[in-house]
Amino acid sequence: MIAAVGHFEQDTAVERIGPGRWRAGASAAWNIGENANGGYAVSPVLRAMAELAEHPDPLSVTAHFLRPLRPDGRDLEITAEVVRAGRSLTVMRASLAHDGADRIVVLGGFGDLTARTAPGVVGHVALAPPRLAPPEECVPRAELAQGVDLPILERVDVRIDPASAVSGERDDAVMAGWIRFADGEPPTARNLFLFADAFPPSVVPRLGAVGWVPTLEMTVHVRARPAPGWIAARFECDDLADGRMIESGSLWDATGRLVARSRQLGLVLGG
Amino acid sequence: MIAAVGHFEQDTAVERIGPGRWRAGASAAWNIGENANGGYAVSPVLRAMAELAEHPDPLSVTAHFLRPLRPDGRDLEITAEVVRAGRSLTVMRASLAHDGADRIVVLGGFGDLTARTAPGVVGHVALAPPRLAPPEECVPRAELAQGVDLPILERVDVRIDPASAVSGERDDAVMAGWIRFADGEPPTARNLFLFADAFPPSVVPRLGAVGWVPTLEMTVHVRARPAPGWIAARFECDDLADGRMIESGSLWDATGRLVARSRQLGLVLGG
Repeated sequence: MIAAVGHFEQDTAVERIGPGRWRAGASAAWNIGENANGGYAVSPVLRAMAELAEHPDPLSVTAHFLRPLRPDGRDLEITAEVVRAGRSLTVMRASLAHDGADRIVVLGGFGDLTARTAPGVVGHVALAPPRLAPPEECVPRAELAQGVDLPILERVDVRIDPASAVSGERDDAVMAGWIRFADGEPPTARNLFLFADAFPPSVVPRLGAVGWVPTLEMTVHVRARPAPGWIAARFECDDLADGRMIESGSLWDATGRLVARSRQLGLVLGG
Repeated sequence: MIAAVGHFEQDTAVERIGPGRWRAGASAAWNIGENANGGYAVSPVLRAMAELAEHPDPLSVTAHFLRPLRPDGRDLEITAEVVRAGRSLTVMRASLAHDGADRIVVLGGFGDLTARTAPGVVGHVALAPPRLAPPEECVPRAELAQGVDLPILERVDVRIDPASAVSGERDDAVMAGWIRFADGEPPTARNLFLFADAFPPSVVPRLGAVGWVPTLEMTVHVRARPAPGWIAARFECDDLADGRMIESGSLWDATGRLVARSRQLGLVLGG
């Protein structure tokens, strides 16, 4: 059964309290341990930015994670301002604060994913979806050793492809699988940032348990509005040096269409 | 002969004129047609950010290009502010204006590329450099049809691998080759943004001449300080839909070390 208003929609709602200012609740239901998942924490900021923008879809969103966000019942404070409102793109700065300290700063451009850039545009290049075992043959994330409580797994259903559901056994560092909201809420362009940040670190299949991998910065490019159903996802770390890794991800909807790309700079602290 | 102060160093100099405010000259020597190359235009902003940061190296820099910058002898105005100064990372917002209008907005984190994130860090993953013809067997960019004057080629020596020096003849969209400063100035962490934005569009080998491909947003992750000598570079567009493309790039120094990753959202307008 599909809820009339899903948990994600409800738990990322924002209320405008002044020019360029919003407040939002912070639910602990999307936590990784005691901290909010980063993709969830960015999501109310995207809602505020969407209220400000002339355009509906986040085309390019960069978030720097300054400090963890620990939901404690007190409101989040969001600010957002338009840097430039163009014909096809609105560029905005935004920030999320809690308990008097900035937690996330965002720079992003919103546009319309249903519009072409020019009438005469030619050329199409599409990254093919990965070969994955079907969701029912994948490993639910909750069954993997995590080293931390994951309340978020009550909200998102994450299934790991058997080839990725290993620890320190592979030469490559690839994490692939499926994701959807547990309550049946269909995916939208604005929740793909969350879906791009809800899988185990891609270094685990190669390095084994590495503990918490904090994200310093993450950029998500939304490429199309997703169709209802499972989202297939593939993340790879092909670049790790001195404890700093680049992880690149791609997400496809149930029709096989590429719907988002992600890239993050994260810290592998070890142990 | 290596100049005592190279052209790049000189043409990206900034002068602090107040708290969080700098002015800079804008040289037309780095132009693509009548507009400044985007990577060059970002570079004085990185200089200002480096003056503000506790840390020397740009680890993650995202720039949104709002409007073209046309150097006309008048100063550029740069603003930068620290969002958070942490132990290992300084996160900053910045902007570049000219003729009364913002041209570029930047969000970036600076750190120290010579420091490890933690003493016990294990694991190393390195992307291998591409197989390229040696620079002397590559095609100087100036010899390729460009459809636009490229004064910048007096400043940077760009050599295109023969496999990429084609127009509309390939199934893949890959642009690879070599780059260095024409005056012998050695590469640094702060000029890799320029080097990541100085090659022809990667869609050309597949689609043929596509005209100007404006960059909406570009993120560069610097991974290591480069050794002197040629930089090898490889860019690929594996995702183009409705005229919006994602181009991902990697740069390696003369020792074969991966020194930067890039990703941009660009517009293929066609014709």
